[in-house]
Amino acid sequence: MADNYYSFRNLKFLTHELFKLSELNRFERYKEYDDEAILMALDAARQIGDRLLFPIYEEMDRKKAYYDKGTVFVHPQIKTIMRSLSAGGWIAAADDYEYEGQQMPLSLLNAGLYTFYAANANAAPYAFLTQGAANLIRTFGSEELQKTFVPKMYAGEWQGTMAMTEPQAGSSLSDLTTSATPTAEGHYKIKGQKIYISGGDHNAVDNVVHLLLARIEGEALGTRTISLFVVPKKRIENGELVSNDVNTAGIFGKMGQKGYVAATLMYGEQDDCHGYLVGEPNRGLPYMFQMMNEARIGTGLMATGTATAAYYAALQYANERSQGRPPSNKDVNLAQIPIIEHADVKRMLLFQKSVTEGSLSLLMQLSLWADIEREATGDEKEKAGQLLELLTPIAKTFPSEYGTQAVSASMQTMGGAGYCDDFPVEQYYRDIRVNAIYEGTTGIQGMDLLGRKVTAHNGKSMRLLMEEIHSTIDAAQQVEGLQAYANKMIEGVKSLHQCTMHQMQNAMNEKAEVFLSDATLYLEYFSLVTISWQLLKQAVVAQKVVNQEDKHHDFEFYKGKVYAMQYFLNYELPKTRGLHDRLMSKDTMTVDMEAAFIN
Amino acid sequence: MADNYYSFRNLKFLTHELFKLSELNRFERYKEYDDEAILMALDAARQIGDRLLFPIYEEMDRKKAYYDKGTVFVHPQIKTIMRSLSAGGWIAAADDYEYEGQQMPLSLLNAGLYTFYAANANAAPYAFLTQGAANLIRTFGSEELQKTFVPKMYAGEWQGTMAMTEPQAGSSLSDLTTSATPTAEGHYKIKGQKIYISGGDHNAVDNVVHLLLARIEGEALGTRTISLFVVPKKRIENGELVSNDVNTAGIFGKMGQKGYVAATLMYGEQDDCHGYLVGEPNRGLPYMFQMMNEARIGTGLMATGTATAAYYAALQYANERSQGRPPSNKDVNLAQIPIIEHADVKRMLLFQKSVTEGSLSLLMQLSLWADIEREATGDEKEKAGQLLELLTPIAKTFPSEYGTQAVSASMQTMGGAGYCDDFPVEQYYRDIRVNAIYEGTTGIQGMDLLGRKVTAHNGKSMRLLMEEIHSTIDAAQQVEGLQAYANKMIEGVKSLHQCTMHQMQNAMNEKAEVFLSDATLYLEYFSLVTISWQLLKQAVVAQKVVNQEDKHHDFEFYKGKVYAMQYFLNYELPKTRGLHDRLMSKDTMTVDMEAAFIN
Repeated sequence: MADNYYSFRNLKFLTHELFKLSELNRFERYKEYDDEAILMALDAARQIGDRLLFPIYEEMDRKKAYYDKGTVFVHPQIKTIMRSLSAGGWIAAADDYEYEGQQMPLSLLNAGLYTFYAANANAAPYAFLTQGAANLIRTFGSEELQKTFVPKMYAGEWQGTMAMTEPQAGSSLSDLTTSATPTAEGHYKIKGQKIYISGGDHNAVDNVVHLLLARIEGEALGTRTISLFVVPKKRIENGELVSNDVNTAGIFGKMGQKGYVAATLMYGEQDDCHGYLVGEPNRGLPYMFQMMNEARIGTGLMATGTATAAYYAALQYANERSQGRPPSNKDVNLAQIPIIEHADVKRMLLFQKSVTEGSLSLLMQLSLWADIEREATGDEKEKAGQLLELLTPIAKTFPSEYGTQAVSASMQTMGGAGYCDDFPVEQYYRDIRVNAIYEGTTGIQGMDLLGRKVTAHNGKSMRLLMEEIHSTIDAAQQVEGLQAYANKMIEGVKSLHQCTMHQMQNAMNEKAEVFLSDATLYLEYFSLVTISWQLLKQAVVAQKVVNQEDKHHDFEFYKGKVYAMQYFLNYELPKTRGLHDRLMSKDTMTVDMEAAFIN
Repeated sequence: MADNYYSFRNLKFLTHELFKLSELNRFERYKEYDDEAILMALDAARQIGDRLLFPIYEEMDRKKAYYDKGTVFVHPQIKTIMRSLSAGGWIAAADDYEYEGQQMPLSLLNAGLYTFYAANANAAPYAFLTQGAANLIRTFGSEELQKTFVPKMYAGEWQGTMAMTEPQAGSSLSDLTTSATPTAEGHYKIKGQKIYISGGDHNAVDNVVHLLLARIEGEALGTRTISLFVVPKKRIENGELVSNDVNTAGIFGKMGQKGYVAATLMYGEQDDCHGYLVGEPNRGLPYMFQMMNEARIGTGLMATGTATAAYYAALQYANERSQGRPPSNKDVNLAQIPIIEHADVKRMLLFQKSVTEGSLSLLMQLSLWADIEREATGDEKEKAGQLLELLTPIAKTFPSEYGTQAVSASMQTMGGAGYCDDFPVEQYYRDIRVNAIYEGTTGIQGMDLLGRKVTAHNGKSMRLLMEEIHSTIDAAQQVEGLQAYANKMIEGVKSLHQCTMHQMQNAMNEKAEVFLSDATLYLEYFSLVTISWQLLKQAVVAQKVVNQEDKHHDFEFYKGKVYAMQYFLNYELPKTRGLHDRLMSKDTMTVDMEAAFIN
């Protein structure tokens, strides 16, 4: 196993130098979070990662979760891990002090989350899915629901889930049929089947609390007639936990994340499954989208964590493994050189470095905006909120799609060794792939970006983003050594703008099918520009240090930052050219062609 | 499991309509191979695929090969499969009639091989690796070696292997240290360790015949002091098979192809391992490259087969699975539509279709050239040989790299179902990934293409290829409906030519490190143009049928062919723009930067 699964140094660069999270203490809520406190939190996260999570990462795959006679068995350490993440304050972290929370900024919490996911994206999700479910109850649930469920969830004793998907309703939630029948006692009777429910059932917790979407009896199909319910596996009667008629039919045999269960659940087979309405009837989908949007950021963090861990495994291997000689001097009497000296290997490593560091940066940027949106007022609040909303599909998708490619590059860096299970990279390769499917596939994200986000607020979000990018470009223009890259960025932004205008014309002149047909490509295009921007933003800080006359003791770190940006703008940003070509074209073949011609 | 793992119709299109293999019967060697005989062979292959190979594909993964106390256990059906492929004449197929062969053209043999790999790329390789090893003995081995080993190998009773890689010598074969000490009896004593030896040992055969690279005692390091030996697991003494001191230390835990063993082998631990020199001393590497070049084509076929099988699984799912509604009419009272109706799903399927059909076409093209090179004379022979040589790195790499992406698209088409083992796609995803590592990684192939193949014969190979492509363009110009695509192709070829000239200047003006630093990107660029050409070549035939006044009964098939070409030229060929940008740039960061900056 590799020695390192992430770079603490890099994370600290983001929290302390680039995004300066401590400046959030201008808000009353975050006033305890100075640089010192932030560093302590990062360090606490590292210790949990080092001691509890990373050591069992491979074992959770080799001894995967399994189902036997109605019970789901997970790695025995999951129980300890959930309790420890709770004890460390991580599950309740974002909540108010009076609710046992830490009023931790999301940006800091997500730095921790990234650490945990890099250490073990099979174990950590149990706790953070629970956090998301608890948040939802805290935000929209009655005081009684909060009191009954949240403390146990924050304690890591009860698992929380997000129970949405049904066999006939995956991407199309409007088709869900799980029903909720009102009773005289105030609760509802739930009946239906849910599939692919992450953390849906397991033996490390005493109870499982499903945040479940269902339709109240008599309501028509559609997305506006969906309600949200709390449906526990065991309900409380006379202070005792009793069965609530929620049964696990099995778990899925996933290619990766084999330690993190995805279950098929049957609700109300005996007509005795109680559900408790959250908030108002028929508001389930908007409520769930609070959790969904958090989960999309979480998915981006999970993908970034996994790709990071693979990158460090490959980097270590590339430094230790000798093979071949320089093309200009192949004298066999010379010792072989470490493979990291080969240009093609450097290229592959720089790809991994820039994808993971660019992704993490974007995710931290969005988390910071979420903090600002929560506490600021007026224009500042609005701006942060709109930017967060606009870039969420990118923060979910880029790390998932390019992260998957990055892990493939980690494997390629290692050659045959990367394909075999003496190293963890083959597991990272299997694990990361699910992120492009979780919480809305890439296709769904593309349509969300182009069909909703770009046009939202009369295009104001887009203008705000362009302002942000241009302010980075202006800063880069002032730094010796970055001008050429600032210019590349200008070109990138200009062509994205042109392409976006073209899409907007399509939106007006063409049917929705045509307008949205290449939304996935548009998302990639937008992502390449966005990540270039984040890397340039990092390079502005780093290049200034590099330019100092006295070499900084961390010179290599900063120089590496600049190289990561250079790599991305030299090798990845040019991919927008082909995308531009396609997205500006008038061809509509994927809309026009009959499905029967695909044979 | 999916119903179909490949399209017989498509294969027949290539053999009978596009490449017209029966025209090879102008050569005496292939005179039996008329259209009828070719069809019979394709059908025989299909039957083996349907009856023996495909049914155990998933089982070979679930009940993977394992090592126990010195013995490697494979699926019990492997024995039957090897014997059946032999009985069907497939192992000896390419050999002369007098050696029990069928004088089958390689193009037809490879059509069969593709069928077998699509059906089961865990089982079929045992037989075809044996074929390659036997060919090597037939070509360079003494009559005695041929007599002793080849019949048993052709019978599928003895496994053949290619024993090259050592712990310190993977891509760098010049560093191999396995030694061969001459003895008075004429044989050599072999001592050393080999790793990642595919088919290296297993219980479905009575013996394993290693085609092994070693250095004769006293020779210096380097590639010109390597010799080739036949080293059986058991040697024959007094008509009996006795141990030859070849021991299996274990097998690798691969992410995929878990039914196809890769072993670690110890030769001569008791100083009693006999090896028999093949051909001349110190000629081992050029000899091995006959097998290696065949194996590279074979790897392309394996990748194409796996990607094809994944494509048909995804296509079937996309036709059967309903989800969502058209963007312009989301009325929930309408039934959901099959997902194949969604533009983004069509796009993903067209990607899979064009990658697999383009790859197969290129592989058939190369196989045909190999047949011509073998039997033709003069310019025709030279031309076929040079084109084969030039495009081998592409025929190995494009199917491996883009095939891996295609299987990822198969998975994405299926969403969560694709990630789980109720369907075979997750296995295809794991299996296909190794092809970019087998037989020279993608990085090695890029350097081979740019550093050797493009410059070979004073650039004549390149000129020959350009002529071939232009003749397809000319044909396309004459077909109603293809002009626009012919023009795209002209542009693609022109920019590849320009980029190639630039690389040649680099070769003269820059050190080798710089010249070769982006060879992998150049390979991708070249591949995109080459595959576009093959798809256009197919479209020329198909569009003519589409243009007929009376609808051909197979109209959908031909129309689909044209769409696959259109997709590739509309969506994939534009990727060359970004690559062009990068490859024409003066930046040399991956050469200049110190490895320490990657941190």
